[in-house]
Amino acid sequence: ERDKYENNNVAGVVTGLAWTRVGGDILFIESILSKGKGTLTITGNLGTVMKESATIAMEYIKSNAVDLGLDPDIFEKYNVHIHVPEGATPKDGPSAGVTMLTSLVSLFTQRKVKKSLAMTGEITLRGKVLPVGGIKEKILAAKRARIKEILLCEENRRDIEEIKPDYVKGLTFHYVTDMSDVIKLALTNQKVVNAKEL
Amino acid sequence: ERDKYENNNVAGVVTGLAWTRVGGDILFIESILSKGKGTLTITGNLGTVMKESATIAMEYIKSNAVDLGLDPDIFEKYNVHIHVPEGATPKDGPSAGVTMLTSLVSLFTQRKVKKSLAMTGEITLRGKVLPVGGIKEKILAAKRARIKEILLCEENRRDIEEIKPDYVKGLTFHYVTDMSDVIKLALTNQKVVNAKEL
Amino acid sequence: ERDKYENNNVAGVVTGLAWTRVGGDILFIESILSKGKGTLTITGNLGTVMKESATIAMEYIKSNAVDLGLDPDIFEKYNVHIHVPEGATPKDGPSAGVTMLTSLVSLFTQRKVKKSLAMTGEITLRGKVLPVGGIKEKILAAKRARIKEILLCEENRRDIEEIKPDYVKGLTFHYVTDMSDVIKLALTNQKVVNAKEL
Amino acid sequence: ERDKYENNNVAGVVTGLAWTRVGGDILFIESILSKGKGTLTITGNLGTVMKESATIAMEYIKSNAVDLGLDPDIFEKYNVHIHVPEGATPKDGPSAGVTMLTSLVSLFTQRKVKKSLAMTGEITLRGKVLPVGGIKEKILAAKRARIKEILLCEENRRDIEEIKPDYVKGLTFHYVTDMSDVIKLALTNQKVVNAKEL
Amino acid sequence: ERDKYENNNVAGVVTGLAWTRVGGDILFIESILSKGKGTLTITGNLGTVMKESATIAMEYIKSNAVDLGLDPDIFEKYNVHIHVPEGATPKDGPSAGVTMLTSLVSLFTQRKVKKSLAMTGEITLRGKVLPVGGIKEKILAAKRARIKEILLCEENRRDIEEIKPDYVKGLTFHYVTDMSDVIKLALTNQKVVNAKEL
Amino acid sequence: ERDKYENNNVAGVVTGLAWTRVGGDILFIESILSKGKGTLTITGNLGTVMKESATIAMEYIKSNAVDLGLDPDIFEKYNVHIHVPEGATPKDGPSAGVTMLTSLVSLFTQRKVKKSLAMTGEITLRGKVLPVGGIKEKILAAKRARIKEILLCEENRRDIEEIKPDYVKGLTFHYVTDMSDVIKLALTNQKVVNAKEL
Ligand SMILES: [Ca+2]
Ligand SMILES: [Ca+2]
Ligand SMILES: [Ca+2]
Ligand SMILES: [Ca+2]
Ligand SMILES: [Ca+2]
Ligand SMILES: [Ca+2]
Ligand SMILES: [Ca+2]
Ligand SMILES: [Ca+2]
Ligand SMILES: [Ca+2]
Ligand SMILES: [Ca+2]
Ligand SMILES: [Ca+2]
Ligand SMILES: [Ca+2]
Repeated sequence: ERDKYENNNVAGVVTGLAWTRVGGDILFIESILSKGKGTLTITGNLGTVMKESATIAMEYIKSNAVDLGLDPDIFEKYNVHIHVPEGATPKDGPSAGVTMLTSLVSLFTQRKVKKSLAMTGEITLRGKVLPVGGIKEKILAAKRARIKEILLCEENRRDIEEIKPDYVKGLTFHYVTDMSDVIKLALTNQKVVNAKEL
Repeated sequence: ERDKYENNNVAGVVTGLAWTRVGGDILFIESILSKGKGTLTITGNLGTVMKESATIAMEYIKSNAVDLGLDPDIFEKYNVHIHVPEGATPKDGPSAGVTMLTSLVSLFTQRKVKKSLAMTGEITLRGKVLPVGGIKEKILAAKRARIKEILLCEENRRDIEEIKPDYVKGLTFHYVTDMSDVIKLALTNQKVVNAKEL
Repeated sequence: ERDKYENNNVAGVVTGLAWTRVGGDILFIESILSKGKGTLTITGNLGTVMKESATIAMEYIKSNAVDLGLDPDIFEKYNVHIHVPEGATPKDGPSAGVTMLTSLVSLFTQRKVKKSLAMTGEITLRGKVLPVGGIKEKILAAKRARIKEILLCEENRRDIEEIKPDYVKGLTFHYVTDMSDVIKLALTNQKVVNAKEL
Repeated sequence: ERDKYENNNVAGVVTGLAWTRVGGDILFIESILSKGKGTLTITGNLGTVMKESATIAMEYIKSNAVDLGLDPDIFEKYNVHIHVPEGATPKDGPSAGVTMLTSLVSLFTQRKVKKSLAMTGEITLRGKVLPVGGIKEKILAAKRARIKEILLCEENRRDIEEIKPDYVKGLTFHYVTDMSDVIKLALTNQKVVNAKEL
Repeated sequence: ERDKYENNNVAGVVTGLAWTRVGGDILFIESILSKGKGTLTITGNLGTVMKESATIAMEYIKSNAVDLGLDPDIFEKYNVHIHVPEGATPKDGPSAGVTMLTSLVSLFTQRKVKKSLAMTGEITLRGKVLPVGGIKEKILAAKRARIKEILLCEENRRDIEEIKPDYVKGLTFHYVTDMSDVIKLALTNQKVVNAKEL
Repeated sequence: ERDKYENNNVAGVVTGLAWTRVGGDILFIESILSKGKGTLTITGNLGTVMKESATIAMEYIKSNAVDLGLDPDIFEKYNVHIHVPEGATPKDGPSAGVTMLTSLVSLFTQRKVKKSLAMTGEITLRGKVLPVGGIKEKILAAKRARIKEILLCEENRRDIEEIKPDYVKGLTFHYVTDMSDVIKLALTNQKVVNAKEL
């Protein structure tokens, strides 16, 4: 059975769109902090490329800490763990990059993620968002999962335009080119309830 | 020959339900502490996904230490070893997550696990319990093993309802959605005999 | 050619029973200490599960140091090396667990192992001994090797009872359920000659 | 769809020429710095030889720091991450060497890369640039991508001379033999906007 | 072409007997020291079991340092490198154990190895020497290589007795059971020329 | 296309002879230093045995530092990187040993390598040079590459004598038995231009 959108109550939990063996699906990127020395742990039965996305997101945030309003010293004081349920399903590919980025920025700022939003897109170190495949299947899965807004790379716009309008009714699309757009669009300025003091 | 339920005398020992090559079975998750610097050792002929469950449980506890009534500094003072007998049987999958979580919380709090209880369910970093497969076979194995109460994900309720009532007679089911429910249901407020001072 | 029982002169050397490609055989678990920082080295052409047994034995001892009459600080001052001759034979499986446990406790206490004793059984972190396979072949090998007493899991008792009485004449069997029984039965209260001061 | 040349706004981003499963293409080498202790992280679904190119570039720069106008102590104060989008495409081979070298020197000096330039060539520790294969396909890809100038090894000159003149119209070629030539030709003396203070 | 015995001028160089793809041969175990922190490096295209022999030899010496007349603190002050030429030939098995033991004791004591001696035998942590295979082929190779004396496990005596007497004419055999015998027989009390001060 | 001899201007760059998939060829061993703590990095698409040669050369130099006129403390102050272009060609085998030795001694002493010299030979820890294969092909490649002098193991002399005299006209051969001969023959007493102060 497919997953449903849950809520935006928890910092670090973001809804992504995936293309798996069974077609399109949503997936959750989860990240948490614990006191530590800056290690990054990645779980969820992930392939090499998807693990690399987590590393890219983390290093991008470290390198652009000041622009993101983060104290650069924070990264040495906490360990980060990124997990992608469900462990029984192998997952790979670069398309969870924007989701991982959003998850980590939400985690370190404790800002709430926008409600009913899902996203898919590759990230880069230079701050660009790249287009990804399987868009049609991902959109249909998003609708089934009660997603209302979808964040995509600008270069995936034509993939959406090729989908029969009926299928995308009720969905709002946000097209981005830069990772800074992702953060502006995906994160609210509100902190989560019981936000951690970092 | 299949295992039988033993007892709840030892902190960190919890009964799980597994689906192996030979059908359903119970298994024990065991964990112990020794003075150290916070390393986590995992043994028991486990596959990658099952090892990841142990990491997820450990990191979730570290990240939610205060809510669980634990001193966050404790984790740097002890090494943890999680083992799943029996070494000759390869084991994998995410379904021992709730069992590992319960094992580690019991270990760090030295609280007694509820008597005659077994459990199965995947865990996440955001605190949700996810449904798992092989429910029917696991339930039959639990009964053979003299288990009285079973903890499951709410989304596995219909799997139970599809089982012929005679087969589940004498079993009490607890359906959970959150990892905090698991801890409340599975652990008593009583310490084990000869509880360690941590 | 098969091995013969040797003696109990050296701390840390214990006779186990193995089931190899060529049938039953005895094997020696050897362990030594050297000044160090607590590393554990395992050699002897061992598979993953057998290496895990060594880790389980070591961690169990660390966690139960006080009950075993050991100073918990000792483990950081020495490196331990466990070896299982003969290097040309690949070995695996959990059945050397009790032998490794006995070897390490003998090593850290410098107590003499009981004379003419061999053993086989899986160990756990909760202190239980589990039954193992190949009992008949192991017993015949023990007899050929001039073993007089054999330590086994209680659940292996019926495997012995199924063996033709003539074959087990002259052998004394000790059935155990707990790892503490193993240590009581297998180790004498006498120190080895030239016992090391730890 | 093939990539297009972007711009030279960001330090550490350099355009390379690659020969992939689908023919010639441009690729971007991206590198960033974050406070750290000198680790080098490499991502982008790269094979062993391409990862080695990154190591060679980094070590060459460390060894020739003074000649490059860099403080040799800087390398212990930052972690470097080199990434090559696009994660879904496996990449390998030594031909991105000059691109990686340029990327890292740009990163550490915060100098702007020359506009509309792409490059391909193997690097060595002794400072020589070596010729690479697939030149014709790479040049056609560069043109499609709106590249204006191309940096190549002198020994690849004849590969260019064998291409029909019409195909290379509008392209300027720079042939180099030494890595110091690469740096002189590829980097401007202008800092990027918002250059970091290292 | 087969190797010939060389000399006993260099500490840490000992002649072993090997059984390779091309039949029996002699081989040299070489070890050297350099200032360091106690790491052990092993080279020579060796398989796992042969590398384990080097570890066993090293750990045995550390554990029995006092009995061997060595200062136990010495091991933390030097790095040891053991090499077995010839790199093009893969080598494996436990039979070089006695040779590695002799090499390392010679290295740490700077004592000369006995002249014209070769050896073969497995070592253990409890100090026993175990028999090995391929004896006939090894002996013929030793003779061709102008070896005069051969050190073997006592349990290999019958392998020698089965060889036609003519073939072993001129060879002296030393049969040992214990690793202490190896050291007594294989090392002279004379230091090598230009012995290092450790 | 095959490589040509270059020059002896740079410390640490030495010309070796290799036998590859495409026949004989010359190759360059390059090594550089950077401030560090003594790590050794090896690149160039090398197999295990060729990497071992680099380790052997490095450890031999460390162990014989004083005899080579080097301060033994120098090795902890620098990181060494050895590279063998060309990354696209897999390389393996022990025959680059003498070349790596010469490269590292040149690097640490900043002495110039002899002009127009190439070499091939396996090295050992006891200081012997061993013969290698593919001599005829290597010599023809050396000639094509405008090499004038060749350093070989004494035991490879007969391989040269079997080559038609015309083919070796104009080449001078140096036969060595010891690694100290290699260093004496291959390195001049002149420092390279712009020699580093170590
Ligand atoms: Ca799903
Ligand atoms: Ca996604
Ligand atoms: Ca079972
Ligand atoms: Ca379970
Ligand atoms: Ca045996
Ligand atoms: Ca055993
Ligand atoms: Ca592309
Ligand atoms: Ca390139
Ligand atoms: Ca040989
Ligand atoms: Ca040998
Ligand atoms: Ca070449
Ligand atoms: Ca060579």
